[in-house]
Amino acid sequence: MLRTHTCGELNISHCGQKVTLSGWIQRSRDLGGMTFIDLRDRYGITQLVFNMETNSELCLEARKLGREFVLQVKGQVEERSNKNSKISTGEIEIIVHKIKILNSSKTPPFTIEDKTDGGDELRMKYRYLDLRRNEVREKMELRHNLSILIRNYMNDLKFMEIETPYLIKSTPEGARDFVVPSRMNPNEFYALPQSPQTFKQLLMISGYDRYFQIVRCFRDEDLRADRQPEFTQIDCEMSFVEQEDILNTFEGLIKHLFMKVKGLSLSDFPRMSYADAMKYYGSDKPDTRFGMKFVELNNIVKGNGFSVFDNSELVVGICAENCSEYTRKQIDELTEFVKRPQVGATGLVYIKYNLDGSLKSSVDKFFTPEKLEEIAKEFGAKPGDLILILAGREEKTQTALNVLRLEMGNRLGLRDSDNYSPLWVVDFPLLEWDEDTNRYYAKHHPFTAPKPEDYSMLFTNAKDVRANAYDLVINGVEIGGGSIRIFDRDMQKDMFKVLGFSDEEAQKQFGFLLEAFEYGAPPHGGIAFGFDRLCSVFGGVESIRDFIAFPKNNNGRDIMIDSPSQIKQEQLDELQIKLVIKD
Amino acid sequence: MLRTHTCGELNISHCGQKVTLSGWIQRSRDLGGMTFIDLRDRYGITQLVFNMETNSELCLEARKLGREFVLQVKGQVEERSNKNSKISTGEIEIIVHKIKILNSSKTPPFTIEDKTDGGDELRMKYRYLDLRRNEVREKMELRHNLSILIRNYMNDLKFMEIETPYLIKSTPEGARDFVVPSRMNPNEFYALPQSPQTFKQLLMISGYDRYFQIVRCFRDEDLRADRQPEFTQIDCEMSFVEQEDILNTFEGLIKHLFMKVKGLSLSDFPRMSYADAMKYYGSDKPDTRFGMKFVELNNIVKGNGFSVFDNSELVVGICAENCSEYTRKQIDELTEFVKRPQVGATGLVYIKYNLDGSLKSSVDKFFTPEKLEEIAKEFGAKPGDLILILAGREEKTQTALNVLRLEMGNRLGLRDSDNYSPLWVVDFPLLEWDEDTNRYYAKHHPFTAPKPEDYSMLFTNAKDVRANAYDLVINGVEIGGGSIRIFDRDMQKDMFKVLGFSDEEAQKQFGFLLEAFEYGAPPHGGIAFGFDRLCSVFGGVESIRDFIAFPKNNNGRDIMIDSPSQIKQEQLDELQIKLVIKD
Repeated sequence: MLRTHTCGELNISHCGQKVTLSGWIQRSRDLGGMTFIDLRDRYGITQLVFNMETNSELCLEARKLGREFVLQVKGQVEERSNKNSKISTGEIEIIVHKIKILNSSKTPPFTIEDKTDGGDELRMKYRYLDLRRNEVREKMELRHNLSILIRNYMNDLKFMEIETPYLIKSTPEGARDFVVPSRMNPNEFYALPQSPQTFKQLLMISGYDRYFQIVRCFRDEDLRADRQPEFTQIDCEMSFVEQEDILNTFEGLIKHLFMKVKGLSLSDFPRMSYADAMKYYGSDKPDTRFGMKFVELNNIVKGNGFSVFDNSELVVGICAENCSEYTRKQIDELTEFVKRPQVGATGLVYIKYNLDGSLKSSVDKFFTPEKLEEIAKEFGAKPGDLILILAGREEKTQTALNVLRLEMGNRLGLRDSDNYSPLWVVDFPLLEWDEDTNRYYAKHHPFTAPKPEDYSMLFTNAKDVRANAYDLVINGVEIGGGSIRIFDRDMQKDMFKVLGFSDEEAQKQFGFLLEAFEYGAPPHGGIAFGFDRLCSVFGGVESIRDFIAFPKNNNGRDIMIDSPSQIKQEQLDELQIKLVIKD
Repeated sequence: MLRTHTCGELNISHCGQKVTLSGWIQRSRDLGGMTFIDLRDRYGITQLVFNMETNSELCLEARKLGREFVLQVKGQVEERSNKNSKISTGEIEIIVHKIKILNSSKTPPFTIEDKTDGGDELRMKYRYLDLRRNEVREKMELRHNLSILIRNYMNDLKFMEIETPYLIKSTPEGARDFVVPSRMNPNEFYALPQSPQTFKQLLMISGYDRYFQIVRCFRDEDLRADRQPEFTQIDCEMSFVEQEDILNTFEGLIKHLFMKVKGLSLSDFPRMSYADAMKYYGSDKPDTRFGMKFVELNNIVKGNGFSVFDNSELVVGICAENCSEYTRKQIDELTEFVKRPQVGATGLVYIKYNLDGSLKSSVDKFFTPEKLEEIAKEFGAKPGDLILILAGREEKTQTALNVLRLEMGNRLGLRDSDNYSPLWVVDFPLLEWDEDTNRYYAKHHPFTAPKPEDYSMLFTNAKDVRANAYDLVINGVEIGGGSIRIFDRDMQKDMFKVLGFSDEEAQKQFGFLLEAFEYGAPPHGGIAFGFDRLCSVFGGVESIRDFIAFPKNNNGRDIMIDSPSQIKQEQLDELQIKLVIKD
């Protein structure tokens, strides 16, 4: 080894020892007769000392070294006079006897510091330098630690990690596949998996009973700020279980991680139906760190001559505590906020429950004080509170009020990232109707089983069929979801039929699964967690990109390696494909 | 849960308990008044009993159930009269009170038994049924166990598992890439990684110090019997190390695995230079479970008038102990064996050292008894031994004799799969000359560093430049290989130059790495193990395919899911590619 110790392990107990360290120059300071260099590696920082008086030649050499040079130094550990209690090596320094420059460095394009001066684009281009920063390294360490904890927990519960193939078959249902032309089978393509869904179900049919895999998945979707074309899933499946067994098993996993990583003992996770989540939070991933639940007002406010309410499918509001003294300007701000196209409300009605007990609203001319009081009572409001009301089409209004609720949560400091509020959302609908294509899509995926009691409605009232499908939500972020699966050929064929597959299409795409169901498929179900997302929740940061060593940008490009890129004509020829050149 | 216990956990201590089991029917037997069903799950087999006398209705129902039906049964644990000591549940049986058929099964296309009647093709088509067989399940369990052991060992040594991207850039050097057309970047392609080589080096430049990853890799090569287009690597890299540090670290890992999995304490692994491996075994992955080392005879046999020897670049042989009594027929068999085109020898010379001390050879007319004795002495042969000699071009003859040596090892029972002989082969040549393309290729890969003392020969005597490159070989199987890397921009540019890259090409393909070398790259090196191969060595089986849950066949096809397959015209249009239809 080119070192006897790392830069993070020496302390007062090593004083007097001769050591060899290797690392990067974090910074250096010349203080007249002395030169100090902070030498950094993954494990920490150790202070090196050079003295003009005792060794001027070496000291002069040290002064020539720049930031991020790679050094090997030999020297003796000594107690520092000026101790630094913030770092583990802060009580000692190394009196250096010998330097070897292992490599030099140009001046980095941005500073390798916690607060760097590098912008996003620059740090992505030089991601290998960005990864040197403590903040980024800690995220990679967190990710590694989580993966080890997860694997050991799952192994202890007798889950087997089984690797499923990455070169699979394109199944156009769902998101868009990345495809891979096959040279050995001309005109044919593999697809990269959007998830190992069918393979894990086959493993259940194979009797593997408890499967998991931390696995890369791929989706060729137009990228939003926080989506990546490749992402990592903790993919899990169990046999001979009901929904409750899966929720308990994976609630155990998440609690274990919080205990090990955060030292937090979480209480049992509440469960909420999808219907209630929409009704009370306007979202299937409610942030339950704070209340401010929706109150529906149709029964109270309609028929009072206020046409906006009278003509709305839904009138619904929230009560923001201690906000009655919001100024005109603040209310206007909120009104503009909800009227932005991405929120889409047409206006905002407020009722202030003043501290003196009086009520003041933006719709005073339609509602008597008694009526306003009745409304306030419905919210359980008290003097000092502010009621905010939206109206319109049901789903759109719920969605808009959800955004407003989260905004008010932010303004009132109710969304503390050190506070964790997990929640199971259950009883998702099996299907959702798509206006554009005029057909049903699977809400979760085509392999999710309808609730047995709702199955009979599949061809009569499909939209009301619920599934044993569930999401785990923490602080308003969906970190995982799953379902009990269909394990019966006829039910699966019914499901494909509702989704508009012809028998031929179903057979062509999923014939292997339909056939497998005929050889003793056990009842089974599972869940998949977004691992990047889970890391970001534990890291207390919104972006998942920070937790990926080499992420892609919003155009799906890796700007560091400059990929994707053109390939050679020979490669295209071998694959027997041609490019369609567009102007 | 649809069970209170698994089919592998009940024993005499559970007698009298009411239990619920779920599993598959392995077999059933009707013995007049009694029916026995063996119920199977991943954990074991439990015997179910039905009695015509006490519950004829249930017993008749049980008799209708076929193999591989999925059952849930409720019943009571009782001690068996007829105990089976071979299985953990062999002392008990379940007196069944209630059956629920969870799913029925058609008769499987082959028997789900250790010795199945299903051929390869059939078992691959119904892989989900093949995976039910004990033998296959045990291989998956071994693989899972190895992965957990490896990860924890690496974690304990402070290696971090970091996920590198699967959508990277095509670099035509090396094997052929699988490519992925980018929809968002028309006319451009990602490539699937052949290994995370450049990314792990960037991680070293980022200061991650110790990295590993159990990671899928992809190569679009024409498939031999034992190659897969996707395979799994244990990929590792360390900074501030020399070759010796890497060998010791990973020797530790392999010893740990043998101890944990096999209970074997292996001695320190011997090291052998590539040159010696070729000279004494004719292979860079010698099977050292047995001796039978090559003996070169040029100095002794030339100039005796036997033109085959006189005109050969190399005359070399092995001594097979206790084979002097091989019959004419056996010798002819060996001769035919080495003359097959895949071995390619032109003939085989033998010398029998008879038990009576006399020598008899196929070239008696060219060599005096004294000369034969001299040759025998060279081999250290004793009465009863058989010397086998090949002659011809050096490399070809070594390779042929290697095949013969392994064959003799097989015939003599010297290649016991329960005996493990690990070996480090070191000092590989940096480059190898390719006659077809008339250029050098990197023996390992273009990032391997020449030995410092050989660097000066890079442009004068390239073929003699050695690298700090090493392979780990166990029982003649290469299970891993690696090298100390180049970490200097100029040396890397020299290497690209020797490989025939223009500056522009080097910059286009590997510019990011060359640039990264300028920002403080540390000395580093690493190794990668073939995980599928490692599993096969631990499983004592030659084929890696058995250790892959869903392998592909020799045409790169998954015949179970029928992939690769044609994709829709819309998909091609979106990707802006066209198929070249060939007649």
